[in-house]
Amino acid sequence: MTELPVTETPRPARRRLSVDRRREELITAALELFSRRDAEHVSIDDVASAAGASRALVYHYFGGKQELYVAALRSAAELLESRLRPQGSGRPLEELAAGIARYFDFVEQHAAGYAALLRGGPANRAGEIGEIVDGVRGRLFLLIQRQMRVAEPSPVLRATLRSWIASVETAGLDWLENRDIERAELERLLVEDMVALLGVAARRDGEAARLLHALTGDQPG
Amino acid sequence: MTELPVTETPRPARRRLSVDRRREELITAALELFSRRDAEHVSIDDVASAAGASRALVYHYFGGKQELYVAALRSAAELLESRLRPQGSGRPLEELAAGIARYFDFVEQHAAGYAALLRGGPANRAGEIGEIVDGVRGRLFLLIQRQMRVAEPSPVLRATLRSWIASVETAGLDWLENRDIERAELERLLVEDMVALLGVAARRDGEAARLLHALTGDQPG
Repeated sequence: MTELPVTETPRPARRRLSVDRRREELITAALELFSRRDAEHVSIDDVASAAGASRALVYHYFGGKQELYVAALRSAAELLESRLRPQGSGRPLEELAAGIARYFDFVEQHAAGYAALLRGGPANRAGEIGEIVDGVRGRLFLLIQRQMRVAEPSPVLRATLRSWIASVETAGLDWLENRDIERAELERLLVEDMVALLGVAARRDGEAARLLHALTGDQPG
Repeated sequence: MTELPVTETPRPARRRLSVDRRREELITAALELFSRRDAEHVSIDDVASAAGASRALVYHYFGGKQELYVAALRSAAELLESRLRPQGSGRPLEELAAGIARYFDFVEQHAAGYAALLRGGPANRAGEIGEIVDGVRGRLFLLIQRQMRVAEPSPVLRATLRSWIASVETAGLDWLENRDIERAELERLLVEDMVALLGVAARRDGEAARLLHALTGDQPG
């Protein structure tokens, strides 16, 4: 889709919106393709064709495939993070459950973006992509840390929270692949997993014990 | 290095050993570099220089950087898997602890290989690399499944075991990054995490309850 020559007085606001929307359409098409095929087997032509656009337009907006790939993942990452900001002020365990529900809203509504973002699994990945994925993971960690009012986690608590985040990521991918567990059931499982993992950590770490207490109201043991 | 014309009676065994050793040296040097820098910032010259070899020799053995990268990760993956094959026939919980100890032996002794394997490389080469990483993960899953005598895991048990494997991977990376938890302590934590996660799964899944019972000797609840 090439730009038509503008013959009327330009209307910047609407025009801007249209540019953004077109860019977004390309990103959506790219995410869909990248999540189903290896990036090396997705061409600019594939993306252009899936979005009903011209090859030239894709180059115009993104410069090349690597830039498009990075832009697509960044867009998925931003959307996911915007979903995870705390919304309410309920009891900590309810807040955690609500956060997981919003996470799975994203997984369900943006399956392509989620799979493209996390297909590499819980492992760190190198380069710009690795930075995006680790960025999401790191900010997710900070969100949980802040929501649970942990100033500086002890090593055991840090390892436990990171492990739990990896569990949630993996559960999201498993659910997309298999869809044989009710979403609500899987969400409850993950809340209970957090409590159980904190319980293990609490046996050897005072900070984890305090966090478990704050989360469940149980007395630290 | 091109093959020299054979003028004497060839001695295949010794010659073969020497070729294998040289190839292994190149792979070791490559893993070391790939685990510290993005693959895109490691050149064939870097690998050759780190291994005290010529650029031509690297090309001779591997054809190019992508092939070298894949060979290096495959080598790390094979080594990790060979470590994880069940060795003894102790009680299930002891077997699990021994398996985790062998896993961390690999993490400690082959830190470069482990980090390179799980860092997975830039996503635009995700195809072959992704297959190696997912292959390790899948065979690790089968190993645990077989060792615990689970024929066909229920959805809840499958999600739980996959989550736990992701926890172990993450704990391994966390330990390499921070080294502020005793290895033995982290290993115990991961065994207890498995029991705790199975406990959560067992509340809603009979198969998980049976597995928990087999692992700990507790009565299924």
